Amino acid sequence: MINNLKFNERGLIPAIAQDADTGEVLMLGYMNEESLRRTLSSGEVWFYSRSRQELWHKGETSGSRLKVRSVWKDCDSDTILVMAQPTGPVCHTGNKTCFFQQLTKPDIEVSHQEEG
Amino acid sequence: MINNLKFNERGLIPAIAQDADTGEVLMLGYMNEESLRRTLSSGEVWFYSRSRQELWHKGETSGSRLKVRSVWKDCDSDTILVMAQPTGPVCHTGNKTCFFQQLTKPDIEVSHQEEG
Repeated sequence: MINNLKFNERGLIPAIAQDADTGEVLMLGYMNEESLRRTLSSGEVWFYSRSRQELWHKGETSGSRLKVRSVWKDCDSDTILVMAQPTGPVCHTGNKTCFFQQLTKPDIEVSHQEEG
Repeated sequence: MINNLKFNERGLIPAIAQDADTGEVLMLGYMNEESLRRTLSSGEVWFYSRSRQELWHKGETSGSRLKVRSVWKDCDSDTILVMAQPTGPVCHTGNKTCFFQQLTKPDIEVSHQEEG
């Protein structure tokens, strides 16, 4: 195991990508041990695609790569934070970040009405 | 389900807490549907503790709460981002953020040596 990191029962660890320049949280992906090794050694972010079940070099098809500035683990070693410089929009929708949809109180209320 | 959110097989969704003022990523927790409802309705962050298996009002023992500024979901609705104002150190170690330990290339190399 890399530095006592705790990978989950599927061998994965969640990895937050944050824009090192703007501070924006860009996306959350998952890494296996090999993704993390490649991320640390190559200087570009690699995830593990849970849907395709394969190593995923972020941006290999879109061209929007994440250049690694620094990599951090959290206090209980079960989450990774990558400070990175994106070379283009990170989200497959074309948005700069995957977090572009806000949730508010009415989202709960609507949900309750639908249930009722 | 709240706004088509995708909770995992355990009924949980990862939730990133970010300092709304400094941009620092503070921690990653997990929410169940009730945690999210309480977070949206109370204005303070609630997680679900996987170790204690119960709702967890962040800061209920430490006093370091997370005041909600805004809540976001990602493009595929399986991750939450909470922009928040912490009232004290978020980490149980006393650090402001849980991400205070850096991973670097030597961490991989040492790991390889140990394996060899």
